[in-house]
Amino acid sequence: MTAAAQTLSHVDEANRPAMVDVGAKAVTRRTAQAQARVRFPPEVAAQLHRAGHVTTKGAVLTVANIAGVMGAKATAQLIPLCHPLALDHCHIDITMQGDDALVACSVSCQGRTGVEMEALTGASVAALTIYDMCKALSHDIVIAEIRLLGKTGGKRGIDHGAGPAA
Amino acid sequence: MTAAAQTLSHVDEANRPAMVDVGAKAVTRRTAQAQARVRFPPEVAAQLHRAGHVTTKGAVLTVANIAGVMGAKATAQLIPLCHPLALDHCHIDITMQGDDALVACSVSCQGRTGVEMEALTGASVAALTIYDMCKALSHDIVIAEIRLLGKTGGKRGIDHGAGPAA
Amino acid sequence: MTAAAQTLSHVDEANRPAMVDVGAKAVTRRTAQAQARVRFPPEVAAQLHRAGHVTTKGAVLTVANIAGVMGAKATAQLIPLCHPLALDHCHIDITMQGDDALVACSVSCQGRTGVEMEALTGASVAALTIYDMCKALSHDIVIAEIRLLGKTGGKRGIDHGAGPAA
Amino acid sequence: MTAAAQTLSHVDEANRPAMVDVGAKAVTRRTAQAQARVRFPPEVAAQLHRAGHVTTKGAVLTVANIAGVMGAKATAQLIPLCHPLALDHCHIDITMQGDDALVACSVSCQGRTGVEMEALTGASVAALTIYDMCKALSHDIVIAEIRLLGKTGGKRGIDHGAGPAA
Amino acid sequence: MTAAAQTLSHVDEANRPAMVDVGAKAVTRRTAQAQARVRFPPEVAAQLHRAGHVTTKGAVLTVANIAGVMGAKATAQLIPLCHPLALDHCHIDITMQGDDALVACSVSCQGRTGVEMEALTGASVAALTIYDMCKALSHDIVIAEIRLLGKTGGKRGIDHGAGPAA
Amino acid sequence: MTAAAQTLSHVDEANRPAMVDVGAKAVTRRTAQAQARVRFPPEVAAQLHRAGHVTTKGAVLTVANIAGVMGAKATAQLIPLCHPLALDHCHIDITMQGDDALVACSVSCQGRTGVEMEALTGASVAALTIYDMCKALSHDIVIAEIRLLGKTGGKRGIDHGAGPAA
Repeated sequence: MTAAAQTLSHVDEANRPAMVDVGAKAVTRRTAQAQARVRFPPEVAAQLHRAGHVTTKGAVLTVANIAGVMGAKATAQLIPLCHPLALDHCHIDITMQGDDALVACSVSCQGRTGVEMEALTGASVAALTIYDMCKALSHDIVIAEIRLLGKTGGKRGIDHGAGPAA
Repeated sequence: MTAAAQTLSHVDEANRPAMVDVGAKAVTRRTAQAQARVRFPPEVAAQLHRAGHVTTKGAVLTVANIAGVMGAKATAQLIPLCHPLALDHCHIDITMQGDDALVACSVSCQGRTGVEMEALTGASVAALTIYDMCKALSHDIVIAEIRLLGKTGGKRGIDHGAGPAA
Repeated sequence: MTAAAQTLSHVDEANRPAMVDVGAKAVTRRTAQAQARVRFPPEVAAQLHRAGHVTTKGAVLTVANIAGVMGAKATAQLIPLCHPLALDHCHIDITMQGDDALVACSVSCQGRTGVEMEALTGASVAALTIYDMCKALSHDIVIAEIRLLGKTGGKRGIDHGAGPAA
Repeated sequence: MTAAAQTLSHVDEANRPAMVDVGAKAVTRRTAQAQARVRFPPEVAAQLHRAGHVTTKGAVLTVANIAGVMGAKATAQLIPLCHPLALDHCHIDITMQGDDALVACSVSCQGRTGVEMEALTGASVAALTIYDMCKALSHDIVIAEIRLLGKTGGKRGIDHGAGPAA
Repeated sequence: MTAAAQTLSHVDEANRPAMVDVGAKAVTRRTAQAQARVRFPPEVAAQLHRAGHVTTKGAVLTVANIAGVMGAKATAQLIPLCHPLALDHCHIDITMQGDDALVACSVSCQGRTGVEMEALTGASVAALTIYDMCKALSHDIVIAEIRLLGKTGGKRGIDHGAGPAA
Repeated sequence: MTAAAQTLSHVDEANRPAMVDVGAKAVTRRTAQAQARVRFPPEVAAQLHRAGHVTTKGAVLTVANIAGVMGAKATAQLIPLCHPLALDHCHIDITMQGDDALVACSVSCQGRTGVEMEALTGASVAALTIYDMCKALSHDIVIAEIRLLGKTGGKRGIDHGAGPAA
């Protein structure tokens, strides 16, 4: 998915921050899926399992789920050059895989630009909330990975000469 | 740092979300340090290196730095059960380590509870911003790890019977 | 308007929070009207009347009106599973009815989902602001009722099998 | 608790909005408790009871609880003349009483002004969220009452000549 | 551009705040350009020039640029009667003109109302940030002017009987 | 008030954005006063005067006043490197001076850093709101000046070697 050949020659001479102008792009249905993996030390995972994934702060996965949805909606306020988008849907699903909590975040909208950052931000805020709900148990919890799983709705190559359209 | 022996027996019978009451804790100087690692595919890392870490959206590390500071300040609005804290300082330092960008975020305040979540949130928002600044080059960029490096200012065992004080 | 026969059988097996996906709904003009009633103790109502509804904090109804409009615009940030919507209009009208202040909030947009929550939130924030502007006079002020008055623009039965479309 | 004798004579001649200056007040522990009552039509209450208070949008009371805590933290952004306060604690407890959901919100901080508005706002946002979670079942749900239950930490009469300190 | 003949006779009898209803307006491409001028005392301008416009807080113009873009996106949260708009683009360009920093802010969207306030707010927040980045050098820095340069996309006279469409 | 002799030699080698660490500063009462001047074309000023400074959007100066107070409270969310501060007071007074509206904003808090940016931001948001309330009359309205009038509570020279303490 990488674009080794892409040049960076059109950069503003002062290297100043610049939002992409999406005014000429078509409004299409855009979707994106991202995931975050929260890794618990084995004894913490076992302890959480025995407790039904509830800590003194409440039901870990439920609180994280809600925080993730609200985080996805806050993306354009957090990421400086992101466009504000009216999301049609944000769904977060958190499951346990061995000692890990796996956060999957799917986002969709009708818009002129993709929703990758919304999906990644939703997954990240959910993962941070899992950490917060469990940190009294251990500070060795790690968010082990946040990555994009897929996206649809943009035109390949239309933005920057290569790669999935931004 | 884990607290295998800690029990979860004091959980509210309805498992409802519950903020920790920090009213009886002492105001002390609290610090925390967290890091996030952003992993670029090798050809993307090489391309960024040649371009001075500037993309069509601007100077990647500078924009990420600012976003991280603002993200740390927004922590209590993002993480449902976090306490609002008046931060004295938030410093973000981003360096390249091989093909990775390494975000270090240090936070301090005078308060009744720790600033781990502020440090982790600052690092996460900076990492997400790096992704956003570079996503036109590749969607194979991964946030490979977000973790706490250290914290000071809380009393061990004061909160939940074990582990680093929250 | 109630839907006694509606079943809740499609609930996610984990009972996790889930935003409604509105991506397949039509964009139509949506309107909603809500009201909030703030009840003053008689002597406070009389005192406010003599003072032209001005307290040491300013003109009560005007400040509440503005707060209500801004509150309506903040709905998607406050209510976890609400969709962000670009409102075309929010109008707040506050009148005195006997000892009560009656807040009427009308909202409209072109969108894929209704604006009930925006109307209710606008009315609520206006009512809370009335309380704040007058609380030095009495803490026996009560927000006596917040309710939806009407809505247009959704299709009956299209969402959940019964009742006004959400 | 009302202050019939209080005069409004010190009002700014232009009736302009004016925040209270709390700079000369003592920092003390402040608490406040508020409640909101959400009234369901009987058949909706019965339906929710049978479903374990879960709708297609998730566990009603849990989502409302979290929204209420976040709402209490957002008070100074919503109510124009409220002071920003670093809350030590916000606890929300929601119980069913017959056909009603009863939201109790307790807030505390160490500060120069009371936390009534935070308690009332937390209760209100939780109540609005209950409405949102259930509105596909009925739009005849009503928030029947929002009121202050108690407060501690201010000095009677210190603010405006009468009534509980603001 | 002024509309001397416009009457104010249709004002609500209570002079209450009222958002304009844009529901009947056409969705068109809207653009606006604004500028802000920050005036430095000559010795401060000289000092900044020698330092490459970097202070102890970082690269002045870059931080201001980012803050301006984020400020433009926050317009509807700051200006009470502004409509929320999904911006397609916000570009900020800051140049030095003699002893002044000149901020140019261009905004565009597809919407039912103009983006003047977004352009003006973006320019203002960038100018305030320049002040903040440099205030350790002098408090005699002044934001000497903020003005609209142009706008397109509205219909003359359609809104209020005269003047550029709002 | 300028500090011509101040050097910029302590700049981070990478010129990266850096918040000032205020953790070692004393908590003192801090105040700041700023003003903004909004210049109306003469015929617009005359028209506003005849209309009692009310437009179709409501009472201009009252809405601007409230927006300014809320803007001052939002300073740390708008200006990237500002510290969050719990303001004790923000007072905005707007008067007409010939054809100009003059916004005076006074802010105070007990804190470790000054409140200049809060006073300047409050004045700026009030001025922008005046523009928004009147822009249907003319787009030749200009914010002619935003400046700091005074500040107290910091120690001269403690921060950066010269000039008023930041």
